[in-house]
This record gives sequence, C-alpha cells and structure tokens, in this order.
Amino acid sequence: MGAVKTKRMPRAVREQQMLDAAVRTFGQRGYMAASMDEIAELAGVSKPLVYLYLNSKEDLFTACIRREGQALTEAVRAGVDTRSSADRQLWDGLRAFFTHTAQHPDGWSVLHLQARTHGEPFAAEVAALRAELVAFVTELIAVTAREAHRDRDPDLAEREVAGLAEALVGAAESLAAWSNATPGVTARQTAATLMNFAWAGLGNLVEGRPWSPPAGAEYRP
Amino acid sequence: MGAVKTKRMPRAVREQQMLDAAVRTFGQRGYMAASMDEIAELAGVSKPLVYLYLNSKEDLFTACIRREGQALTEAVRAGVDTRSSADRQLWDGLRAFFTHTAQHPDGWSVLHLQARTHGEPFAAEVAALRAELVAFVTELIAVTAREAHRDRDPDLAEREVAGLAEALVGAAESLAAWSNATPGVTARQTAATLMNFAWAGLGNLVEGRPWSPPAGAEYRP
Repeated sequence: MGAVKTKRMPRAVREQQMLDAAVRTFGQRGYMAASMDEIAELAGVSKPLVYLYLNSKEDLFTACIRREGQALTEAVRAGVDTRSSADRQLWDGLRAFFTHTAQHPDGWSVLHLQARTHGEPFAAEVAALRAELVAFVTELIAVTAREAHRDRDPDLAEREVAGLAEALVGAAESLAAWSNATPGVTARQTAATLMNFAWAGLGNLVEGRPWSPPAGAEYRP
Repeated sequence: MGAVKTKRMPRAVREQQMLDAAVRTFGQRGYMAASMDEIAELAGVSKPLVYLYLNSKEDLFTACIRREGQALTEAVRAGVDTRSSADRQLWDGLRAFFTHTAQHPDGWSVLHLQARTHGEPFAAEVAALRAELVAFVTELIAVTAREAHRDRDPDLAEREVAGLAEALVGAAESLAAWSNATPGVTARQTAATLMNFAWAGLGNLVEGRPWSPPAGAEYRP
C-alpha cells in the first residue's frame, strides 16, 4: 500500500484496519503476548499512529471487545424475528450465533477467552455482553414457559429459568470453540446439535415433563 | 504460627499450605495480579521458601492447576458408579461436580478462568483436564445411545455425540460460575437444573425423537 494512498484514507477507515489487525493479533496470540509493533505492521501503519488513534494497548483491546461484542449481538438480533414461535426464534438465533463465531474466530477468541481473564475493565465489558445474551435467552424461555402454562401455575420458577439460560449460553460458548477447532463441522450442524439438545429438553420442561430422579437418589433440591 | 512449630512441619504439609494460599490468591486476584509476596504471607512462610519448594510463579501456578484439576476429576469419578443406569450416572456426576466447584470456588476460578488464557503450558494442562471430562460424558452418551438403538442403526453419529458432550460440559462450566456467583443457589439445585435440561433433551435424542425444524427454516445440516 503506497504512502499517498494511505494518507488519503479517512480516519474511520484507518481505525477499522487497525482494529482488524488488533483482533487478529489478540485472538491468535493472546492479550499479553500481542505486541503493538506486530499490530501496526499487520495494519500497514506506523506504531505512533496506532497510539495516536487508539491511545494505548489497553484502550485498543477495549475497542476490540466492544466492536466484536456489538457485531455478535447484532448478528444474533438480526437473525431472529421476535414474532416467530419460540423454537423458531431459538433455531434462528443459534444459526446466527454459530455462523458469526465461525466467520470471526479471532473475534470470538477475544471475547470468549482473552477478555474474561485480564482484569478490569475488560472483564466488565464482556460480562455486560454475555449478560445481554443471557437476558435474551431467559426472556425467550420465560415467554415459552408462560405460554405452555396458560391454564395453571408455572412450574418453572424464575431462578430455574435463569439457570436454564446460563446452561444454554454456556453450551453455545463451548460448542462455538469446539466447532471452530474441529475441521469439517459447519455452523449449521453445530446449531442443529445444540437445538436438538436444548429444545428437546426445554420443550419437555415447559410442557411440565421434567426428568425424575431415580429411586434412592436422595433428591432434595 | 510460631517458628518452632513451623520448622517441625513436614515438607509435604508445608507445600500443601503454599498451594492452598496460591490457589486462593490466583483464584481471587488472577494470575497476573497475584504476587509471590502475598502468597508467601498468606501461607505464613518466607518468599524464598516458596521459591525453594516450588521454583517459580509459573511452576507454582502449574502445580495449582494440576492439584485442583485432579481433585475435581477425582470428585466426579468418586461420585459416579459406572454400574448404574446412564441417567443415574449423569445425575450423580453432576451433583459431585457442582458440589466440588461450590466448595472450591477459587480452585474453579483457577481452572475455568485463569489457566485457559495465560499461554502454555497452562492452557495445555487445563485442556487435558477438560478433555478427560468431555471423554467421560461422551462415553456415557454413546453407551446410552447404543442401548436405546439396539434394534436399529444408531441415529446419533459419532460427531453428534461429541458435540452433545461439548454442549453439556460447557453448560456445566457456565452453571458452576453462575451458581458460585448467585447467593442462595445450592449445588443440588444447580445439578437438578442441568439434569432436567440435559436429560430431557438427551433422553429424547437417544430414543430417536429429535427436534424438527419449522417449515421454511431451510434445514440443511
């Protein structure tokens, strides 16, 4: 890329190129090992320019978390029509989620692995993103449970629904990492695996058909 | 603790005290922020003694991962009787898992958060531990699926079983963190939530009752 061409580039475009390079470097090397030299070189700019635009390694990493987090939640929201049936919403949401994580493995690594364990403010950034996804799934399960229990008291307590949503999001996170690391597994197959698992289970629960502990299992929840 | 009493202590006991202090510090502060000074003080020994026994911060952290990982897998294995029915094994295994993570929140934080994101050799240590848990669950699902499909070809392909095991372990990891952070949620309640979710789903799958995508969902797995 020639110097003249580079200079003509608007700041916003240049910044996105830096973020692209940073997400790739943080995602593949990890936050600690990633160097600003490497990020600048990959972005095709000087290191002082990266500092001028994004201030510090910490601020650059925060910008990466925000951009990748926003892109992921937007992809899921765009994939779901909230007027659809609950199982259709879940299926569409899972497909959108796994398609996005498969297409952005470095971004997913930044969010899922890097951001959670390098202290504040990173952990808080990604916790807020995760909470948004959990809330989305919680609402979906709660609505479904209420619909299924129109005639009687709901069997699924609020806390149980919150736990189910945590389980589903955790399963999705685990499968996204597995799917990205397993050659030949498509986003659609991964979504179908989790949908089968989750919906067959949730479907039974909201219809009031829970699993029963075996005799002698001392079931005292 | 007096100097005389300390000196009489066998090396193995002293080392466990250092590891106790290290797990607590790494779990609560994170690997990077934890200082050897703090760990030595909490263990009631001098910093040079920690280095003498455990060599370096890296080696100390590796020793923590190994000890906590071994304790967790041993707790799960001890909780499960492999001669039991599949759902009983899963229920017993989940109770053992959540009981252990609830009783050792700092150890769980070391394994689940810290160890995964600070490069090698830590990531490899905890990946091996996780692979062991996934293999245990995979075998459980595979055996159940084979039993349910005695009369016909199994519907659950090997890859599907591997995906289901990843989903279940991911759900358990997510719920352990949620349960430890949510006041008033017991290990038994958490195990019941995941058992309900997982078994109702798995039970249907292995019986050949998968979820079916809605019309128009372009289901091409």
